[in-house]
Amino acid sequence: MKLNIAVLPGDGIGPEVTAQAVKVLKAIAIEFNHVFIFHEALVGASAMVKTGDPLPEETIAICENADAILFGAIGNTAYDIDPNAKVRPEQGLLRLRKSLDLYANIRPVIAYEDLLTKSSLKKSQIKDTNIVIYRELTGGIYFGEKKLSEDGNNASDICEYSRFEIERIAHLAFKAAQTRKGKLTLVDKANVLESSRLWRRVVQEIAPKYPDVELNYQFIDNAAMELIINPRQFDVILTENMFGDILSEEASVIVGSIGLLASASLGDKHAMFEPIHGAYTKAANKGIANPIASILSAAMLLEHFGLDDEADLVREGVDKSLKLHITTPDLNTKYDHVTTTKVGDFIEDFINNPDETNLN
Amino acid sequence: MKLNIAVLPGDGIGPEVTAQAVKVLKAIAIEFNHVFIFHEALVGASAMVKTGDPLPEETIAICENADAILFGAIGNTAYDIDPNAKVRPEQGLLRLRKSLDLYANIRPVIAYEDLLTKSSLKKSQIKDTNIVIYRELTGGIYFGEKKLSEDGNNASDICEYSRFEIERIAHLAFKAAQTRKGKLTLVDKANVLESSRLWRRVVQEIAPKYPDVELNYQFIDNAAMELIINPRQFDVILTENMFGDILSEEASVIVGSIGLLASASLGDKHAMFEPIHGAYTKAANKGIANPIASILSAAMLLEHFGLDDEADLVREGVDKSLKLHITTPDLNTKYDHVTTTKVGDFIEDFINNPDETNLN
Ligand SMILES: CC(C)[C@H](C(=O)O)[C@@H](O)C(=O)O
Ligand SMILES: CC(C)[C@H](C(=O)O)[C@@H](O)C(=O)O
Repeated sequence: MKLNIAVLPGDGIGPEVTAQAVKVLKAIAIEFNHVFIFHEALVGASAMVKTGDPLPEETIAICENADAILFGAIGNTAYDIDPNAKVRPEQGLLRLRKSLDLYANIRPVIAYEDLLTKSSLKKSQIKDTNIVIYRELTGGIYFGEKKLSEDGNNASDICEYSRFEIERIAHLAFKAAQTRKGKLTLVDKANVLESSRLWRRVVQEIAPKYPDVELNYQFIDNAAMELIINPRQFDVILTENMFGDILSEEASVIVGSIGLLASASLGDKHAMFEPIHGAYTKAANKGIANPIASILSAAMLLEHFGLDDEADLVREGVDKSLKLHITTPDLNTKYDHVTTTKVGDFIEDFINNPDETNLN
Repeated sequence: MKLNIAVLPGDGIGPEVTAQAVKVLKAIAIEFNHVFIFHEALVGASAMVKTGDPLPEETIAICENADAILFGAIGNTAYDIDPNAKVRPEQGLLRLRKSLDLYANIRPVIAYEDLLTKSSLKKSQIKDTNIVIYRELTGGIYFGEKKLSEDGNNASDICEYSRFEIERIAHLAFKAAQTRKGKLTLVDKANVLESSRLWRRVVQEIAPKYPDVELNYQFIDNAAMELIINPRQFDVILTENMFGDILSEEASVIVGSIGLLASASLGDKHAMFEPIHGAYTKAANKGIANPIASILSAAMLLEHFGLDDEADLVREGVDKSLKLHITTPDLNTKYDHVTTTKVGDFIEDFINNPDETNLN
């Protein structure tokens, strides 16, 4: 298969972890006789430094022409703290999601057997947890009108949803549930929000088309608790943009490190793959960033194009690295300082020689 | 001291747990020679059944004339699931908060030494955690304009904040930090929301008035993770209405049961005290509801009026009940079925005879 892949390393640890994912994709291409062509482009704070724009026209063009996008991370501590910045790195990501209509953000949350002790949660609590979060990504309060009054004394954001926006991601979530444990939990705040009530109504209307899926509901406040005290109750979680942002980062505690969580952001025409973690400027260029989230995002990319064997091989490599403790300091207690690059190298080696790779 | 206390038991387990808190307050009144006069009123689904209104005029009048309000819980599963209900039990609570201008919701999160093993989190993780959440309660997306288009295909909610609304609760939070560990964390989503940027701006402007308080910031998605992986980093958390709703219910996992979390909702003229848990209709009338959250809310009520010794005695009673495992099934593994009433009786006995109460 020939794939044009846009690579947007972005800011902070983005470039380091993305380099490992690219390395892994290159190894897969050789091993399976594919042609992957990589097109690097600027985004975020690093794009602002060079062009003044967190999402330069050229980057959008490269992404539009690519079969898939591999995204690193964006953000910069200076902007994080400053509420008055006119342009922000995050706009690069948000505008990209919107302009490519990447409406379905899919975030798997899997408790790895070999990492159960790394979690802040008790082992017995998280064992066998396997959740996938379907987060709506191009609507809600992220993209509704924002206002700041002229005197600066009042500010507002509108959270809005249309039936169309809810339907399209709801169908994807129901279909995912059909191939999994057949359970869908809609998370909203329908006891308070009109937009949440529309979510419930639309999802309830769609539900009869999927008689094999058991639908239930949780309010977001309750879900934030239930995710910790009983994570195994969940199979597919469907939710709107902001609640999905919160729940999926919270869910990283189950897996043991946010450096492990991958995601796919899908639209009808485009597909982007990115770790859910941010740019962690402070950790940049120290070789301590965990590349697994980025590498697993690459596996989701492969799977998206039906390259299941390829994706499986990448995941086996990841599993093996975890089992052998070839991991960055966020997870490693056994070996001194396994670097970002070393983890990438190990998984690359594994792909080249699945049967031979071992501790060396 | 003479206090007129409005008692709004509400729905589900509300009446059962509130009855225990009233029992405890009566014992305190006798022990310390106070006069507490209780005025019961309807709210929520039970008020709807009797009057059609989740917050009857009479209830508002009773609350307005009282020195303090003791609130149970509201909600009903039937309404929870139905997105089309015209009137909802929750409106009783929301309208009460708004009409009495109860803008500061204060939610302490304390890891009890005797309950460390009850949490889903590892003991080492939560030991010594002592957080208080200052949640804004009368603004934000809860109270902004809500719209449903005529064709039912679009719905929206506005999240809006004014400088005034932010300032008044921010001052309370800074002052609380001064009497505690001197640390204030503002939780928002300033990288995306205009309203959050106003929060940051206003809080940054106020900060120099409190030079002894260390101010820092977290985005809500990140805070939802940090609360689990490193809860001890927090002292006072200040946040807007919706984020506070989510974070405080999530924080219950630290304490071990949501049946333990009390809260105060304060305005400049009125003060309400309520457990943070909901009505749990399914658990009603079984004697299994944990009354501690309601009893600790009564302790916060006493403290609010400067009755510190009285509040301390209630808390000692609670501590002792926990130490001796006189607790409802959500916490108890030692004794069969200690009922809601038994827990209340135990704490009442303790107040009457602090030195003698013991397992019997
Ligand atoms: C960086 C930020 C704008 C982004 C979001 O809130 O969507 C991030 O937290 C994420 O989850 O991808
Ligand atoms: C019942 C509901 C409206 C309420 C809220 O969201 O504020 C509750 O969850 C709470 O936290 O007091």
